[in-house]
Amino acid sequence: MNLLQNIKPTLLMGPGPSSVSPRVYEALKTPTIGHLDPRFIDVMDGIKSMLKTLFLTENEFCTAVSGTGSAAMESCFVNLINPGDKVLIVQNGYFSMRMENMCSRLGANIDVLKFDWGFPADPKIVGEKINENNYDIVAVVHAETSTGVRNPIEEISKFISNDTLYIVDAVTSFGTIELNVDKWNIDAVYSCSQKGLSCPPGASPVSFSNKAIQKMKSRKKQIPNWYLDMTELIKYWDGEKRAYHHTAPINMMYALYQGLSDVTTEGIESTITRHQEVHLYLVDGLKKLGLEFLVEKKYRLPSLNSVLIPKGVDDAKIRTSLLNEYQIEIGAGLGPFAGKIWRIGLMGYSAHKDNVDRLLSALSEVL
Amino acid sequence: MNLLQNIKPTLLMGPGPSSVSPRVYEALKTPTIGHLDPRFIDVMDGIKSMLKTLFLTENEFCTAVSGTGSAAMESCFVNLINPGDKVLIVQNGYFSMRMENMCSRLGANIDVLKFDWGFPADPKIVGEKINENNYDIVAVVHAETSTGVRNPIEEISKFISNDTLYIVDAVTSFGTIELNVDKWNIDAVYSCSQKGLSCPPGASPVSFSNKAIQKMKSRKKQIPNWYLDMTELIKYWDGEKRAYHHTAPINMMYALYQGLSDVTTEGIESTITRHQEVHLYLVDGLKKLGLEFLVEKKYRLPSLNSVLIPKGVDDAKIRTSLLNEYQIEIGAGLGPFAGKIWRIGLMGYSAHKDNVDRLLSALSEVL
Repeated sequence: MNLLQNIKPTLLMGPGPSSVSPRVYEALKTPTIGHLDPRFIDVMDGIKSMLKTLFLTENEFCTAVSGTGSAAMESCFVNLINPGDKVLIVQNGYFSMRMENMCSRLGANIDVLKFDWGFPADPKIVGEKINENNYDIVAVVHAETSTGVRNPIEEISKFISNDTLYIVDAVTSFGTIELNVDKWNIDAVYSCSQKGLSCPPGASPVSFSNKAIQKMKSRKKQIPNWYLDMTELIKYWDGEKRAYHHTAPINMMYALYQGLSDVTTEGIESTITRHQEVHLYLVDGLKKLGLEFLVEKKYRLPSLNSVLIPKGVDDAKIRTSLLNEYQIEIGAGLGPFAGKIWRIGLMGYSAHKDNVDRLLSALSEVL
Repeated sequence: MNLLQNIKPTLLMGPGPSSVSPRVYEALKTPTIGHLDPRFIDVMDGIKSMLKTLFLTENEFCTAVSGTGSAAMESCFVNLINPGDKVLIVQNGYFSMRMENMCSRLGANIDVLKFDWGFPADPKIVGEKINENNYDIVAVVHAETSTGVRNPIEEISKFISNDTLYIVDAVTSFGTIELNVDKWNIDAVYSCSQKGLSCPPGASPVSFSNKAIQKMKSRKKQIPNWYLDMTELIKYWDGEKRAYHHTAPINMMYALYQGLSDVTTEGIESTITRHQEVHLYLVDGLKKLGLEFLVEKKYRLPSLNSVLIPKGVDDAKIRTSLLNEYQIEIGAGLGPFAGKIWRIGLMGYSAHKDNVDRLLSALSEVL
């Protein structure tokens, strides 16, 4: 029995992956060709050029790593941290904890500045911490997928000096809310394919500023990671003669190309507006069902809606019913919010009002 | 203009990727679902179980890493090397050089035992080297994709003691020639999706013996790699309650599932026989064209055929003609063989006589 035949279309309204658009499914089955085929190099160049536009950056180095979002996260830290570097991690959720875990493996001298889960970082407190110390790296998650909070990336950027690299996690923000890499002085930004871009997971955008590239190129010792070594990958993505490093995930790059094309066609501003509108539509509908949000209005992400599970309601039972009876996935809570919230994603192709209607109708029946 | 529409089906007869079968293209566009969806966990379990069968192993830990073959290679070294470990790398090609590069990043104490490119390792010399030293790890490439040589994995295995882990690169051998993980006492084996399994690149089989897992679990310090940390991944792939580590490349895992199913349906022995038969058919055809092989007959891989470029023939021009006029990819030489050989792959769905006929006909016209 082929298990794949059991897998029927499912509306993905969890923390990601989001539902994949029909255009991306088509792109995915474009004939596989070689990783040094000139036609594939053209696709890579297209990805680079669209990333540059959508990240709002003049960075020459825009790329996609051959893995999912966490590989992109690791590619930033492993390439930009030298052992002993002073690193500040602003922490108010699960994914900034992951940052800490990755940095601790690399011999960084880490300060963690904690804020409560469900609340944004306070830029003043972050600024004071930065001013008191001479950090090599400051790392912040823009859109905390574990809580639905938007962190003040722009405000924090004002405290970043020329000697510091600013690393921003845009996994859930890219293509769903404003993200302005150059204006916000971001030195390394990474995202994924399976949220705002509506692709399957497997190829993940990354961009480095010239300042970041300079630091990377000036290091004395090879990093403890071959697969994600950007000093090598840059020769494959940017070199005049493209040098083979590893075999790229060809068809995933096709999907990413298509996902980026779709956002480009819609326009990044329209895409962001759509996410906000559909979010407000969801807020309204959930309110009618008597459901409340975890996060205060002004810090809420449109792309990740944390909803308090009403008292007496069986978390897992509801999610299972939605999945099995209605073919809708929503996400469970993580960490301190396990069993306390649901995470409803509105990302990319999932962020349309008819999907919200479908979810609200199902929720009203199962609750 | 959408670049993907320019990409027409191409017969991939290079060093990989191989041509993707229509069944795998279909599998690839199975609806994306969540990485913790029970239906996806079933697919993962299917992959594990088929890997166990096809690797000919009782290893409990069979998995697929979320990257291409080089990520699988790195997952073995980074999880199994402790800094200072004595490592022997048997080196007679490009991919054993990659092993050396990876190990050097991990603080290993490396001995490289070199044999000429285009020739197999001599098991007696390897055995003497092993007997004179007390290696923690011995690493060998089974099928050297850069030269087309088959290394004597079974013969070398006889020198591996209980205190040593035996790591074998099966990137080009898995699904194309005999590979017997348990009988050959292999402790860590890795492959890829885009050669014998006829999938696009992006999800790569790995299996560890209990001895390897024991070493991995007994280490004191976290490895410098979060994404490929098998002590965490094992909880997602094998745990009773599957714990989220990173978002898996869902649709690539569908493809891998289908690729493994197809080999399982054909039967691993029949698959291997087919590769050998088609290889002999190619040898015969190339001989008629006056082309000669780099590697001596008894060490030749059926899956990777290194053909000497005749004197006076323009390497790049011929490969470009084949690609542009005949939609056939063959591979260039690497390292010392750049410009001296072509690498003709016969792997998975590409390894059929009609494809050989198509290549031979095109070659006879362009030469």
